[in-house]
Amino acid sequence: MINIRNIKLIIEYDGTNYSGWQRQSNATCIQEAIEKAIFKITSENVEVFGASRTDKGVHAKAFIANFHTESSIIGSKFKMAINSKLPDDITIINSEEVDLQFHSRYNSKGKTYSYTILNREQKPAILRNYVYHVSKNIDVRAMQEGAKFLIGEHDFQSFRNLGSSAKTTIRTVKDIEIVSENNFIKFYISADGFLYNMARIIVGTLLDVGTGKLLPSDVKLILDSKDRKKAGRAVPGKGLCLEEVFY
Amino acid sequence: MINIRNIKLIIEYDGTNYSGWQRQSNATCIQEAIEKAIFKITSENVEVFGASRTDKGVHAKAFIANFHTESSIIGSKFKMAINSKLPDDITIINSEEVDLQFHSRYNSKGKTYSYTILNREQKPAILRNYVYHVSKNIDVRAMQEGAKFLIGEHDFQSFRNLGSSAKTTIRTVKDIEIVSENNFIKFYISADGFLYNMARIIVGTLLDVGTGKLLPSDVKLILDSKDRKKAGRAVPGKGLCLEEVFY
Repeated sequence: MINIRNIKLIIEYDGTNYSGWQRQSNATCIQEAIEKAIFKITSENVEVFGASRTDKGVHAKAFIANFHTESSIIGSKFKMAINSKLPDDITIINSEEVDLQFHSRYNSKGKTYSYTILNREQKPAILRNYVYHVSKNIDVRAMQEGAKFLIGEHDFQSFRNLGSSAKTTIRTVKDIEIVSENNFIKFYISADGFLYNMARIIVGTLLDVGTGKLLPSDVKLILDSKDRKKAGRAVPGKGLCLEEVFY
Repeated sequence: MINIRNIKLIIEYDGTNYSGWQRQSNATCIQEAIEKAIFKITSENVEVFGASRTDKGVHAKAFIANFHTESSIIGSKFKMAINSKLPDDITIINSEEVDLQFHSRYNSKGKTYSYTILNREQKPAILRNYVYHVSKNIDVRAMQEGAKFLIGEHDFQSFRNLGSSAKTTIRTVKDIEIVSENNFIKFYISADGFLYNMARIIVGTLLDVGTGKLLPSDVKLILDSKDRKKAGRAVPGKGLCLEEVFY
């Protein structure tokens, strides 16, 4: 009798050298790297389901994924086994056997992304793959004021790029925290779900507020317009990091 | 009439892909990369004097260097000019013309180095070039207690590797601060000067205290013994960062 089990993974990765989580033609993705590692251990061609698609260059501290296996390896042992077959920019933080019903994406109740800006004159050498460099002065308080208009359930049509198959553009943003320390400005955005590029367009728009191109109150007008062209650009992927997935 | 001027640089670099600051045979060094960039701007073969030799993989947030030039470029303009010719893991933070007498190394009154440890079970993917991974439990308070014995003027013979031409092994450690946040443990070590590998051997020895291999009071015995073999190993370069040089 075949015994199928469901293994949940918590994954940290440095997205610098990848096209993102999901398989795409002609580019290496995180999903594929992990599936290859699992094949080396189990000889099974599993599909690893991810909680999120992340884009090129985007990082994750606690990405959640799951896969089905017929192997007899104990859930908690997958961690070390898979790590031994992975490149050094991907690490399995934890592995455990979970209920067959669990699906990393469909069961997700929300996520927190962080976005990091280095705000100083010169471009970064250290941490250059983890931060977006902005040399203009940024008014953090203006951005905090603008961010308030995004909290709650709204139609975020203005804050998404085409490319996702989302049925609805209504999402609930639970919190946007913006903290400033030394030359770093860090955004933490929590929502029940994110439309395609939504986190990066929110940061891009708030950055327009912070640099004086927009007023804080313009954020509400942009939201109400439901017009992508009114919002700011999607800031680069390298500053973005998936911090947590909620279930 | 030839007008020789002295330019001081503040440099940030990611040491991952370099053999260190100083020129060595068969390996790329930071010094050489900057001298090449200056040549592209001035057509001069200058020697850039550095405040410190840093080893392979060691980083710097504010390395100080200086060079003599006959070019007529304004001091503050070198920054942008050199940056335009540098690879993206080296950045000139500031440039200015200083007195001809100034020498980045001979005039230095002290330095602060930081050392970062990631203390958790799994190896890092993110930040893996900037931290040293230790999976064993670390007692920070025991390390803080051990560190106290190193503060002040002492003969640090036990805490240096051969390879430097230092005339004396007496140095004054002004401060060792050890802070712990999330899974990161960060050391800040300030001294009037550092013997070869001294910062890394101090951290390696304190780590032996933190993991219970040594008692805090053993640090004093090791110091008094003046015997390199009694101290801990030099921890890897990638966790080390030159934070500041004092004048």
